[in-house]
Amino acid sequence: MPATLVVQKFGGSSVADADRIKRVARRIARERAAGNDLVVVVSAMGDTTDELLGLAAAITDEPDPRELDVLLATGEHQSATLVSMALHAMGVPAISLTGPQAGITTDGTYGRARIAGVEPRRIQAELQGGKVVIVAGFQGQSAAQAHEMELTTLGRGGSDTTAVALAAALGADACEIYTDVDGVHTADPRVVPNARKLHAVSYEEMLELAASGAKVLQVRSVEVARNHDVKLHVRSTFSPEDGTWVREEDDRMLEKALISGVTHTREETLYRVTGTTASQLFSALADAGVNVDTIVQTGPEIVFSAPTDDRDAAVDVLDALAVEWSSRDDLGKVSLVGAGMKSHPGVAAKTFATLEAAGIEAPIVSTSPIKIACHVPSSDVDRAVQALHEAFELA
Amino acid sequence: MPATLVVQKFGGSSVADADRIKRVARRIARERAAGNDLVVVVSAMGDTTDELLGLAAAITDEPDPRELDVLLATGEHQSATLVSMALHAMGVPAISLTGPQAGITTDGTYGRARIAGVEPRRIQAELQGGKVVIVAGFQGQSAAQAHEMELTTLGRGGSDTTAVALAAALGADACEIYTDVDGVHTADPRVVPNARKLHAVSYEEMLELAASGAKVLQVRSVEVARNHDVKLHVRSTFSPEDGTWVREEDDRMLEKALISGVTHTREETLYRVTGTTASQLFSALADAGVNVDTIVQTGPEIVFSAPTDDRDAAVDVLDALAVEWSSRDDLGKVSLVGAGMKSHPGVAAKTFATLEAAGIEAPIVSTSPIKIACHVPSSDVDRAVQALHEAFELA
Repeated sequence: MPATLVVQKFGGSSVADADRIKRVARRIARERAAGNDLVVVVSAMGDTTDELLGLAAAITDEPDPRELDVLLATGEHQSATLVSMALHAMGVPAISLTGPQAGITTDGTYGRARIAGVEPRRIQAELQGGKVVIVAGFQGQSAAQAHEMELTTLGRGGSDTTAVALAAALGADACEIYTDVDGVHTADPRVVPNARKLHAVSYEEMLELAASGAKVLQVRSVEVARNHDVKLHVRSTFSPEDGTWVREEDDRMLEKALISGVTHTREETLYRVTGTTASQLFSALADAGVNVDTIVQTGPEIVFSAPTDDRDAAVDVLDALAVEWSSRDDLGKVSLVGAGMKSHPGVAAKTFATLEAAGIEAPIVSTSPIKIACHVPSSDVDRAVQALHEAFELA
Repeated sequence: MPATLVVQKFGGSSVADADRIKRVARRIARERAAGNDLVVVVSAMGDTTDELLGLAAAITDEPDPRELDVLLATGEHQSATLVSMALHAMGVPAISLTGPQAGITTDGTYGRARIAGVEPRRIQAELQGGKVVIVAGFQGQSAAQAHEMELTTLGRGGSDTTAVALAAALGADACEIYTDVDGVHTADPRVVPNARKLHAVSYEEMLELAASGAKVLQVRSVEVARNHDVKLHVRSTFSPEDGTWVREEDDRMLEKALISGVTHTREETLYRVTGTTASQLFSALADAGVNVDTIVQTGPEIVFSAPTDDRDAAVDVLDALAVEWSSRDDLGKVSLVGAGMKSHPGVAAKTFATLEAAGIEAPIVSTSPIKIACHVPSSDVDRAVQALHEAFELA
């Protein structure tokens, strides 16, 4: 029987200091002792990425994107070597690889590159040699200029995508995402104290949950997992308990969960635009790197939302297009996500009734087959999450 | 007329923080505006290397050498990107390259690799494109395993060697070593306040000065400069003044300078060994990485010195060889260096007379054609330097 191959990913808080790194190494060593082949993807230690961004900001307001990528990638190089050293010190054969060494190629877009391919020859050779392979997350080599060895980073949360892409390329049996929470919940436990940990969710649900505010997984990593059928297991670094499985939808999930969870974001800017076409507007916004979230159009007016962080970039685009527009910054968004929604009419009606009973205005509503999203005033976000969590009996 | 090509190297204290990096960038920009092609080698910022060593030490007492090299190399990656960003912000086209990207290959010895070759194709292409090329010092790619992209570091002070090797490979007109002192002095100004800055020294003198305690240049970088006839200019980052030139010996040097300088070290351990052969002893010490300094043998007893930092390693070797040995730790070393010594007998006599008059014991003496080195009690090192500096009228 071939050995089980598991890809594990440890986030920045799991490797924030020497003690935590040693703890992670002990966890890896136990798993290795159980006979599993292991590829381990690590993020930068704790706040390293923010510190490096601060260093760049002290030099210039607009750091060159190529240089910034090389700078930021050092954070993951460091944590990968330290985890490997800790394993060596415990007598566990290990080797750290940078993203390029691990065979990860990208489309070459600095700062938010997408993985274009994985050539896992080196990883497989090291596994064959009996080593635990530690891979620096969040990075890869530009495929277009492979001979120049240009390093690119995948953007915030990119290490999740590194792990899933490696799991897909290696045909791993599972991809474990270790984090400082114990799984995916029915709502943010800081807002809803009796929120429940979910045992399993489908890829589609996880996509909607991640896209609408659940911070536990990067959206793109879930897309890659779905496309390559990689079983994800989101779990706590600091506990042996099972977390949340993300996998193909099955009947059991559908029966049990009408609604998987309620997610929220606190700061979205809502724009109302007239005098342009949707294609012109959204291609200009995409070029400017604005992460458009919701789009609603019912007539000549186009309504869309984007993170408030992207406001300056969005305003530049709107001014350049010479359109009429207005915006408001006082909204957040509450989303109900559940694969069971498809076969259960009446979820929308119950959602609106719940918000109305709580006296909460919802000026914008958008839906997908497994999601209902309502923009509500930022100051009402917590109450809305709590009311919906209770109304749909998620506790 | 082809443009002048200059390789500049800035040490850790020159790029210790954002303000200093911007200052270095302004200096580079001025040089570029003057029409010179520039390749700039940088060390890690300030104490970064020590901080990274501390991080590794917090994980394990004996970090894996390969992982440690990848960890340490991130320090130079960071400073190189920041200098490049600062130039971009000033409108000066620039690009940072890692050691491997710059085409530097090594013999693959982790922690103290030697440069095996330089393939400057990428650097030349970037210069051709009008860019200032910033190269991360202290590192290269193992030639033996080039396909695996294994990173190796050159050991302490290795960035000097990076700069000189690049100057040699590119046929640069000069290699400028920027540091926090204004050149090479006749003695350490902290010990001899009226020590004088030297205008020029020969490669051989600089080798002896560097090997015997002058910290301004790494010995290996001087060897490479001599072998490839690279003109070195050691000068201050913080002043426009000329520093010290290191170049081929010429008549003018010989006439003017009988003695170029007095150097010193404070902590050497002296060993007396019997019961082995010199070849057996020193090959065992070399294998253990002990940096043997002076060797003196006049009979069956072998006397040698090495930095006190290497004491544990040396003792392990001596115990393993089962020889009879003793050691003393209370000595430092004072060295007189000067190309003019060759043609002026009597320097040795005057040296011994000066030390005797000052009442300073010199239990071990060793010489080369351009150097006289005396081991003296550590507590007498400063007085010996001052007495010799005055006796030879170096002020």
